[in-house]
Amino acid sequence: MYSAFETPIEIRPDDIDMNNHVHYSKYLDYVLTARYHQMKENYKMSMEEFIERGYTWVASKVEINYKRALKLSDKIFVRAQIDSARGAQVVLNFWIIKSENNKIAAEGQMVFSIISTKSGRPVKIPDDVIEKYSV
Amino acid sequence: MYSAFETPIEIRPDDIDMNNHVHYSKYLDYVLTARYHQMKENYKMSMEEFIERGYTWVASKVEINYKRALKLSDKIFVRAQIDSARGAQVVLNFWIIKSENNKIAAEGQMVFSIISTKSGRPVKIPDDVIEKYSV
Amino acid sequence: MYSAFETPIEIRPDDIDMNNHVHYSKYLDYVLTARYHQMKENYKMSMEEFIERGYTWVASKVEINYKRALKLSDKIFVRAQIDSARGAQVVLNFWIIKSENNKIAAEGQMVFSIISTKSGRPVKIPDDVIEKYSV
Amino acid sequence: MYSAFETPIEIRPDDIDMNNHVHYSKYLDYVLTARYHQMKENYKMSMEEFIERGYTWVASKVEINYKRALKLSDKIFVRAQIDSARGAQVVLNFWIIKSENNKIAAEGQMVFSIISTKSGRPVKIPDDVIEKYSV
Repeated sequence: MYSAFETPIEIRPDDIDMNNHVHYSKYLDYVLTARYHQMKENYKMSMEEFIERGYTWVASKVEINYKRALKLSDKIFVRAQIDSARGAQVVLNFWIIKSENNKIAAEGQMVFSIISTKSGRPVKIPDDVIEKYSV
Repeated sequence: MYSAFETPIEIRPDDIDMNNHVHYSKYLDYVLTARYHQMKENYKMSMEEFIERGYTWVASKVEINYKRALKLSDKIFVRAQIDSARGAQVVLNFWIIKSENNKIAAEGQMVFSIISTKSGRPVKIPDDVIEKYSV
Repeated sequence: MYSAFETPIEIRPDDIDMNNHVHYSKYLDYVLTARYHQMKENYKMSMEEFIERGYTWVASKVEINYKRALKLSDKIFVRAQIDSARGAQVVLNFWIIKSENNKIAAEGQMVFSIISTKSGRPVKIPDDVIEKYSV
Repeated sequence: MYSAFETPIEIRPDDIDMNNHVHYSKYLDYVLTARYHQMKENYKMSMEEFIERGYTWVASKVEINYKRALKLSDKIFVRAQIDSARGAQVVLNFWIIKSENNKIAAEGQMVFSIISTKSGRPVKIPDDVIEKYSV
């Protein structure tokens, strides 16, 4: 069982589209922002440290359900929880939540793969990372 | 059975991320660009016409599988095919394909809902739109 | 003489480009984010209130000098100070500053014009806005 | 005297902002897209080739005047002309033009500096590049 962590996100004017709501692709950027933040703050191994050790993370799959539109003035946070971490892949469940009423604006699952920057190929997640992720 | 249509997409420098590849959220923008293009060119009812008639389209769900990284120099097109169009929703299957070798860079499914701009609520897709989409 | 205000900005992974630095167009989004924030918090009239009153703001001119590259891990804030507010235009001086050492990453000037959403044309800045901006 | 070159740009739905027009920072991305295109097609040395030779280009300065709003349905192209190329810098004059009526949507000047990727410092533009740019 993995812990869930929460990261506040600031909606920017450039995130707003012609419908006057946060553009649908920006939700993925919010989740990634939270993911990077949580890598550093909660799992204690930042993206920069992965890169120094010769790794990077890439997205392999995204599933997202849009529940409620977001406006520029909305306050939101991303809740994310690792579902599994094995082989080369981390499966991450996420929720984008409106702070005002705790209602879910979007939810879904992403799969990230760890890649060797040398070979460009997926590799087994290092044991110390598996351990760091088991908080 | 619905027709599949193809739209070429130009990768821009601002689509490229720190991994030197097209950023994962930009794939959604490529599919939406193709969707708008096909609404106008292939289904003969542009987004602007929907808006004039008091409708807009919003994303309800996205599933995307990333198969191959895309570089700035890659030539690509989006193939999209309606899977179903009923109630308030169009289900769209899509493939992002490298022109050079016809290999799939990403594939998935999106669900779009038609919204009344007056009520902000989903409405039944108008009959003439259903007919236009049946090409 | 107008006051200067400061707004912290969070650099997001989608802001980073192939050079592994914040992409040059994103600096404009950082300044606009700060502008919106300061409209609400410091000048006490949010963009939403302008829109309710039948106005919007558009950019008429941007001048920006890039001094230092920004990395994903950098902490930054935007300092902005109105230079003049007359006719339909606000001239805004800005600095994007690294929090760590107070060094300037970029600086410049933007001109924003107030537009009547009804006519689509520039209008004289309302007197109460001129007064609100004179803090 | 340097030649001017023109590159068509496709406006994408994700370029449109809450004012229903192309967002002001996206104009910079259009110019950069044209610049990359012209580096490859007109000056016969693509960004990838610069990178292979140990160089990259970064923006040092942007001045842009916004003349006319752009809508999603507008057809546009970027006209760009080198003003000077000496030391480490290329000064580029640009115009973003509506194809329908040849009216200028925006115009301005950008300064790009060539950087050694090894040192991270500006270097003298190589002689063969100066020659390639003198078309």
